[in-house]
Amino acid sequence: MSDVFVIAQGGGPTAVINQTVAGAVLEARKRFPSARILGARHGVRGIRNGDFVELSRLTDTDLRRLADTPNAGLGSTRDKPDEKYCAEILDGLRKVEAKAFIYIGGNDTSGTLAILDKAAGGSMTFLHAPKTIDNDLVENDHTPGFISAAWFVAHAFLSTDLDFRAMPGIYVGIVMGRHAGFLTAAGQAWRRDERDGPHLVYVPERSFSTQQFLADVAAMRDRHGRCVVAMSEGVHGDDGKPVIESLLGDRVERDAHGNVQLSGGDLGLAVQSALTAAFPKVRARVDTFGYLPRAFSGLVSPVDRQEAFDIGAFAIATHAEGSASIALRHEVGQGSGKTVLARVPLDAVAAKTRLMPADFLAASGTALAAPGRAYFDRLVPAAPDIFTGIL
Amino acid sequence: MSDVFVIAQGGGPTAVINQTVAGAVLEARKRFPSARILGARHGVRGIRNGDFVELSRLTDTDLRRLADTPNAGLGSTRDKPDEKYCAEILDGLRKVEAKAFIYIGGNDTSGTLAILDKAAGGSMTFLHAPKTIDNDLVENDHTPGFISAAWFVAHAFLSTDLDFRAMPGIYVGIVMGRHAGFLTAAGQAWRRDERDGPHLVYVPERSFSTQQFLADVAAMRDRHGRCVVAMSEGVHGDDGKPVIESLLGDRVERDAHGNVQLSGGDLGLAVQSALTAAFPKVRARVDTFGYLPRAFSGLVSPVDRQEAFDIGAFAIATHAEGSASIALRHEVGQGSGKTVLARVPLDAVAAKTRLMPADFLAASGTALAAPGRAYFDRLVPAAPDIFTGIL
Repeated sequence: MSDVFVIAQGGGPTAVINQTVAGAVLEARKRFPSARILGARHGVRGIRNGDFVELSRLTDTDLRRLADTPNAGLGSTRDKPDEKYCAEILDGLRKVEAKAFIYIGGNDTSGTLAILDKAAGGSMTFLHAPKTIDNDLVENDHTPGFISAAWFVAHAFLSTDLDFRAMPGIYVGIVMGRHAGFLTAAGQAWRRDERDGPHLVYVPERSFSTQQFLADVAAMRDRHGRCVVAMSEGVHGDDGKPVIESLLGDRVERDAHGNVQLSGGDLGLAVQSALTAAFPKVRARVDTFGYLPRAFSGLVSPVDRQEAFDIGAFAIATHAEGSASIALRHEVGQGSGKTVLARVPLDAVAAKTRLMPADFLAASGTALAAPGRAYFDRLVPAAPDIFTGIL
Repeated sequence: MSDVFVIAQGGGPTAVINQTVAGAVLEARKRFPSARILGARHGVRGIRNGDFVELSRLTDTDLRRLADTPNAGLGSTRDKPDEKYCAEILDGLRKVEAKAFIYIGGNDTSGTLAILDKAAGGSMTFLHAPKTIDNDLVENDHTPGFISAAWFVAHAFLSTDLDFRAMPGIYVGIVMGRHAGFLTAAGQAWRRDERDGPHLVYVPERSFSTQQFLADVAAMRDRHGRCVVAMSEGVHGDDGKPVIESLLGDRVERDAHGNVQLSGGDLGLAVQSALTAAFPKVRARVDTFGYLPRAFSGLVSPVDRQEAFDIGAFAIATHAEGSASIALRHEVGQGSGKTVLARVPLDAVAAKTRLMPADFLAASGTALAAPGRAYFDRLVPAAPDIFTGIL
């Protein structure tokens, strides 16, 4: 009887999530030629509903094409299984006689796997393959998908800084990240000196004050004639109040219940409004990057691709060692060191959030310090050669 | 005495605007070794203020680096000179004994040059080098900067369509373009068949009806399980009313004077609000691409680069023929034909706006027809090889 592996994708997309699927299938093809690899459509929902695709039937060529296609090629889900749902998933896995289940996702995903692992009582192996553009998984140096997203963000801020060099003003780019500011801070990866934007970064790891923000912007305009800002969507004040209220100040409109009347709680619009009030007649522009950086087909890092692929292969190659979360570690060595894979307990990663280390940022909280610079230097592909000798 | 050429950049940036500067300087260095090339900082403002950089002193290496740097490396301006301002520009040009003035910009720029040309009465040559991501210059097949921006937009919609394939819902991406819909329509450049998004495009060339939009979205969701939409920021209704009012419907809030209470007139927020009301509980996301596509350093088309460079060189090479606007023409020939440069009168381009030809769109107005497809096929770089065989 041939072994059965089940693989699925959960949560938000990345540019390289399908690499992990291809890595697993191609490694299984090599090591366990008779094994069947079932891909569950739309994550655990597909397992519950018996909705599988036989990935082991795909040709090597199609698997390589799938690998290079961004976003979840098997479909994804935001379902967060409760106890009953977990029992149904386990049933679904047993029905197809799964030997191991590889679930590609973030910390919610490893949490689901930890629950399933306990419920299965050793009868099946559960493997978490990491993936998130937020880069917020503990036990990992960085996560697949982050490098490509960070590369986009670095290009975005390089480009808008050049734009505002040519025509002065204030620019704010709002970047995904509710808890961890890695992706936003990556905007400063390519700064050559303090004249280069983004001149200010605001991340969820530090508390946000509107008064300080407007003062920071004014100071940068005085110094550089312009101000480019990278802001996380997750910034929040000391008092726990939504930044949107603090930004709008007296201009906030409330309904009969006292709730802020800005549909969608649009941070970008609130920042725009605060800037217009504080700097009338100054060119000020706020862009919310939204979904664009997270799985952009035009900018996929080859290193990111390879690491995501290797994680899938490693999960298959080591599945006999039991349930685990695969972790991307950085080993200091010659040159910039190297990335190695490790197996860590599912519980070590589950439901935890890794924040940016405190020493990544300068005391001001609005610029990278040396350790942060070194980290992004190592991860983000090299900057294009920019000539700014005229202005 | 050595000849003096003045060059400047006006209006919004593109990814290749500096190529035109480098093309002009390198061509002048070859043809007229003793000529001086002065770059005016921040467009015509630099000419008025006597703020020049001696570009002829830059090394070939630095000129090549400048060429490959996106955004206006000389600085730009939004100034629209009136008669007095034009007289000051002419004074500024005479002060440096300019033989010819090359101004890189859109249709406003050619308008300024037409005025200067009349005022100078043949004593100086005025050359317009085209540039705009809007692709809205008459006499041109396409304009430098457009191909790179269109490439970004094609990638953005390919990526978000894959995202919504993985997790169904409604996505709207709002793209720059007040009058011409070329850049928005480029979102459909890589569609393989009607299942691929964006399933709908809305451009300023066709009138927009909220009722029809919501019905279109519902129909696409029925057919494909998701709906991805490319919308120009310039869409407007039959009645000339701002679409934002029509989108918000009864939910619109007005101040004491009856004005719509949505600061900045944010189209994205209005579309989000209309979708949430019409499709409650459906995943619906609106992203405004903002400045990101227009001069993104991560995605610059080599063809776009070369064409912009060639225009600068052509302006210098043909300056003795007198004032003109340089036009990019497409000559049908073997294969996909070729791009050639032509000189057309400044007045032929000045203050005119080229819209997307009516036959580019299907009768519905929401999808490309064959002539539109052929146009974008020819211009936009090839699509990545995407595998969508599982969902």
